[in-house]
Amino acid sequence: MSRVAYVDGQYLPHRSAAVHIEDRGYQFADGVYEVIAVVGGRLLDDERHLARLARSLAELRITAPMSNAALRVVIAEVVRRNGVRDGIVYVQITRGADPRAVDGGVAVIMIPDIRWQRCDIKSVALLPNVLGKQQAKEAGAFEAWQVDREGKVSEGTSTNAWIVTPNATVVTRQADSAILDGVTRLAVLDIIRREGYNFVERPFSVVEAKSAREAFLTSTVVGLLPVVKIDGVAIGNGQPGLLSRKLRECYLTHEAAAK
Amino acid sequence: MSRVAYVDGQYLPHRSAAVHIEDRGYQFADGVYEVIAVVGGRLLDDERHLARLARSLAELRITAPMSNAALRVVIAEVVRRNGVRDGIVYVQITRGADPRAVDGGVAVIMIPDIRWQRCDIKSVALLPNVLGKQQAKEAGAFEAWQVDREGKVSEGTSTNAWIVTPNATVVTRQADSAILDGVTRLAVLDIIRREGYNFVERPFSVVEAKSAREAFLTSTVVGLLPVVKIDGVAIGNGQPGLLSRKLRECYLTHEAAAK
Repeated sequence: MSRVAYVDGQYLPHRSAAVHIEDRGYQFADGVYEVIAVVGGRLLDDERHLARLARSLAELRITAPMSNAALRVVIAEVVRRNGVRDGIVYVQITRGADPRAVDGGVAVIMIPDIRWQRCDIKSVALLPNVLGKQQAKEAGAFEAWQVDREGKVSEGTSTNAWIVTPNATVVTRQADSAILDGVTRLAVLDIIRREGYNFVERPFSVVEAKSAREAFLTSTVVGLLPVVKIDGVAIGNGQPGLLSRKLRECYLTHEAAAK
Repeated sequence: MSRVAYVDGQYLPHRSAAVHIEDRGYQFADGVYEVIAVVGGRLLDDERHLARLARSLAELRITAPMSNAALRVVIAEVVRRNGVRDGIVYVQITRGADPRAVDGGVAVIMIPDIRWQRCDIKSVALLPNVLGKQQAKEAGAFEAWQVDREGKVSEGTSTNAWIVTPNATVVTRQADSAILDGVTRLAVLDIIRREGYNFVERPFSVVEAKSAREAFLTSTVVGLLPVVKIDGVAIGNGQPGLLSRKLRECYLTHEAAAK
């Protein structure tokens, strides 16, 4: 008997059971799962597993693709088709396929940094980042800056965070295990050094950020974007700052130089 | 021009570019990625991106599937086939497809809990768990128990953690956001209540665990397994404890009752 898997509406031979490369489960760990024991051909503690599955989906605000009753039918059918008497059933539900989302000034909000302690590794375990970005979107903001237990900003969910202090010093967190050492971050640091601006790599606090003269964020996808509002508070005069605009211009030149 | 993606040795139409459902990137977030900007048909800061990719792979001990030189050829070919002048290239490397791994007593080691703060959600963002399990394997142990900042055990990488104190009280952490509320955990708690054993749900320390009379772990996949060694220290007399064996027996009966 060859193995069978149910994927997105179809029972398929296990060897050819696949998901699209843009499935958010694959690129963002944006999904949940359950492992249910099969004992003597019957499911063990299935009520509890399905209840927890529903809770996990609700926490991520993923809509269940089918009712629990329908899911029971599918699971029973997979068990039957594979002729399982004693074993396990693996159930996974993701947010599905959705292409990666790709300007003036933008708004950010502050949220607790609840991620793991190795954010220096650019892994696809991005679920906390996904949840943070969702919070930002719901608050009408472009990005969420994550705040560690000491009240210091680590970074955005997909960007590095920068401020310019009242005495015109550019500040961004040093590349420790709390942040990803962004390639655009490094390119902007090169520009700052070359142009001779004052800068320091150190953590900055939420309070410092809200009273900064300017703020901006960087990533490969967005380049350098001025931040004009944090938690609803206008930064500087609420318009992209002078230094932010200057650095953005230099970065675009750096990009152009690659041509 | 239709879009093209490179997947595991082949250039494929984007719409049919897929990975197997057992790819560890999909089930465990066990992979890394880079996003490289394309400006005027050329890659921006590609040296830095490829260097970081190599570092991320090394941190996860994933062998690169090809040399950087070969990867450059593939990336250039994807850019060419998609006719990209200005845009981004997404590169993802995972540990690949590998089926989920599935008695006497087992050994565990203690490791720092470096995970995010919502371990109550059963998500596929399992990379820290994968790394912990790898550490256990390298130490010749079956499982790693994760220890929080207060020196208390949260749980194993794929199992819940239990001890029996010298005065015969069963202890396991309460279901807070630091652990997954295991279905087998709940089933074993039911058994403990029904059989009238002393128990308390609270965090226990590393020191308590090492001087416990007995220890065991639970999960859907393994059921209940006695722990006989922690960080090389024998628990009790180094054999599965009496109460652990009794509870394991009751759990197997609970399983059998599902038939």
